[in-house]
Amino acid sequence: MKAHIITIGDEILIGQTLNTNAAFIGEKLTGLQIKISSTSVVPDEEETVIEEFNNASSNSDLIIVTGGLGPTHDDVTRKCAVKYFNTELIENDEVLGDIKKYFEARGRVLTDTNRGQALVPKIAAVIRNSRGTAPGYWIEKNKKIFVFMPGVPYEMKMMMENFVIPRLEENIKRKTFTVIDNLLSTGIPESMLFDRLGNIEELLQGAKMAFLPSQFGVKMRITVESETEDLAKNKISEIEQKIRAKVGRFIFGKNDDTLEGVIAKMMIDRGLKLSVAESCTGGLILNRLTNINGSSKFLERGVVAYSNAAKVELLHVSEDTIQKYGAVSLEVARQLAEGVKAISGSDIGLAVTGIMGPTGGNENKPVGLVYIGICDSNICSAKEFRFGDDRLLNKDRTSQAALDMLRRLLLGISDED
Amino acid sequence: MKAHIITIGDEILIGQTLNTNAAFIGEKLTGLQIKISSTSVVPDEEETVIEEFNNASSNSDLIIVTGGLGPTHDDVTRKCAVKYFNTELIENDEVLGDIKKYFEARGRVLTDTNRGQALVPKIAAVIRNSRGTAPGYWIEKNKKIFVFMPGVPYEMKMMMENFVIPRLEENIKRKTFTVIDNLLSTGIPESMLFDRLGNIEELLQGAKMAFLPSQFGVKMRITVESETEDLAKNKISEIEQKIRAKVGRFIFGKNDDTLEGVIAKMMIDRGLKLSVAESCTGGLILNRLTNINGSSKFLERGVVAYSNAAKVELLHVSEDTIQKYGAVSLEVARQLAEGVKAISGSDIGLAVTGIMGPTGGNENKPVGLVYIGICDSNICSAKEFRFGDDRLLNKDRTSQAALDMLRRLLLGISDED
Repeated sequence: MKAHIITIGDEILIGQTLNTNAAFIGEKLTGLQIKISSTSVVPDEEETVIEEFNNASSNSDLIIVTGGLGPTHDDVTRKCAVKYFNTELIENDEVLGDIKKYFEARGRVLTDTNRGQALVPKIAAVIRNSRGTAPGYWIEKNKKIFVFMPGVPYEMKMMMENFVIPRLEENIKRKTFTVIDNLLSTGIPESMLFDRLGNIEELLQGAKMAFLPSQFGVKMRITVESETEDLAKNKISEIEQKIRAKVGRFIFGKNDDTLEGVIAKMMIDRGLKLSVAESCTGGLILNRLTNINGSSKFLERGVVAYSNAAKVELLHVSEDTIQKYGAVSLEVARQLAEGVKAISGSDIGLAVTGIMGPTGGNENKPVGLVYIGICDSNICSAKEFRFGDDRLLNKDRTSQAALDMLRRLLLGISDED
Repeated sequence: MKAHIITIGDEILIGQTLNTNAAFIGEKLTGLQIKISSTSVVPDEEETVIEEFNNASSNSDLIIVTGGLGPTHDDVTRKCAVKYFNTELIENDEVLGDIKKYFEARGRVLTDTNRGQALVPKIAAVIRNSRGTAPGYWIEKNKKIFVFMPGVPYEMKMMMENFVIPRLEENIKRKTFTVIDNLLSTGIPESMLFDRLGNIEELLQGAKMAFLPSQFGVKMRITVESETEDLAKNKISEIEQKIRAKVGRFIFGKNDDTLEGVIAKMMIDRGLKLSVAESCTGGLILNRLTNINGSSKFLERGVVAYSNAAKVELLHVSEDTIQKYGAVSLEVARQLAEGVKAISGSDIGLAVTGIMGPTGGNENKPVGLVYIGICDSNICSAKEFRFGDDRLLNKDRTSQAALDMLRRLLLGISDED
């Protein structure tokens, strides 16, 4: 089975909105071993949308369409589906009931605009929407499957999980198995990683591997195809072991792992408490850690000490040290980490200070200069980093380097290169 | 001039990476009045890539290709360009010089893998890369323009800004002018916004308008096409005034404005200081505020008071209040805001407490329950919100509601609805 994903919406085409829907659907279909032949984005124009339905069905068996099902006048997808399948709209009682319930729960009045969303193409199986008012449709015709879902990611995801994926699973007959594994590294550049792995063809033995760099590190994606799932899994785990033997200390996780998630698990398993003092990253490290459900089990508190007063009053950094070395210095990073550990009674204190840019740098302390401090009951150390000139990328890189120092401390991995 | 954007890379197709490049390029081309006919994503496979070059050039005059120019074996784009244009690779001295300089600056040794990146298609104008090692290419043939750039967003963006956009501007002859304006609202659902605007056709007088909802609010995109730029601008500003008359209090900005940016400007202009106490959002509000360059001018400090101990010790919340009403309560939100204002000597204190989920809720205090407190020298108030059941969306919504309370305080807009 081959799939084509169509995203409808000018906002995607002109770059106002990121196409997260195509990414989510692509990932899920890949998980079902469905090959994605192409992804396309087209404007909210009837003629173009219908032409794209024709294009997609000429080279794919499954066409997944998102967007343009909303209640306002600029949504054209339903109209296009009616024309393309030469069908008509009928009011669906189940959907009308869902919409009424949705409005009642929120204490709002049902408008005609919203009631109109209960009109669905006659030949469609309805995909109900528990998170919004627009239903989705599943339409089979001439051995092609068309799935229509709203563009709101939160609603589309629920429909994929509860309806579309289970129904697709019934439709699939498997022949070859593809297994994909992603090893997530940080703290080493792409070309250095590549060179350390040595002869890549020998390592892979016919498998495929891609290097995907970002400000958070380099993802190594390994793809193995085999006759059975077991064979594929065995081969991929062999390759993984070889890679880990060469660059294992830089690998913090696999696939959907996040550095903050990996750290949270270690901290909770060991019953350790963390506190964080952020200057330049301004809350990003704490925000990443608290994205993890259960973070309250290990994160005691955080201080965003932007001003020098906050550093001195809340975290007991010495005023002399700030005067002598500056707020962006190895010494202040160390004292911030010590301070936040002491005031909170936590097991570990982590701290960053630096210049994120675009302004605020000078010749001695350029934009991109960062110091990260970390303390546990045994040691208290700090390290210098030099990043680039983009504020948001620098915040990302600094948060990643700080979390990686924490990971290395927890695992007892020493610095090298 | 019509454009087609091609993104090459399995990682996009299978949903591991978001297609931010197509969004960025789409936005820039729209700004140049170039219509985007379609965007597509294809896998790292030679045959498919070349086929897509053919497809794109059949319906567009400008084809922008990103991805697959890296130093590793899985990058096929350069090979495809050589075949498609029937040309050959030659070593480019300028590019080789750039690569050598890049490595010297970082104190690293030039490897053969990297030196190979100085080989470029003979017929290409080279687009130099000051942020990485892979050069881009600009190739014109049979009245079609092909632009090739690396997939790393940071490198691609620099090439667009410094080379591609200026060169495209030279190529464009303008006939009709399109002006797009986006009004950014928050705190009101899409259907309610739509209904409050009344007769939309009458309001728009032939202009186009789209409603784009997200967890941060609803964006209203207005598009006007006219013979001159002035006519288009006048018409769009008329429409904007009519919309503001009806729903102005919900509109925090336009186009690339962010709520945090709008707030930062007001705070800095008035010389006010802010401090923030976050419980459930765990640093997200502070992170958003510190994404703004110059945030150190108004943001005094922040406390992420996850534990009750931190709330009591650092922010002087009364233990009795926590015992009587619970940490997630109107009273604690108010005391957190009061506390962070008092310890920092700031003009305004902002605080949030709530249950983000997926766990931690109960019948009386369900997941999604949030209290936001805000204090200045005159008043100290708190408000209850009920959001959904998704942790990360709840963090986004809570941060947006808190920042919007701050905006309304600064503008003297009272609550309503």
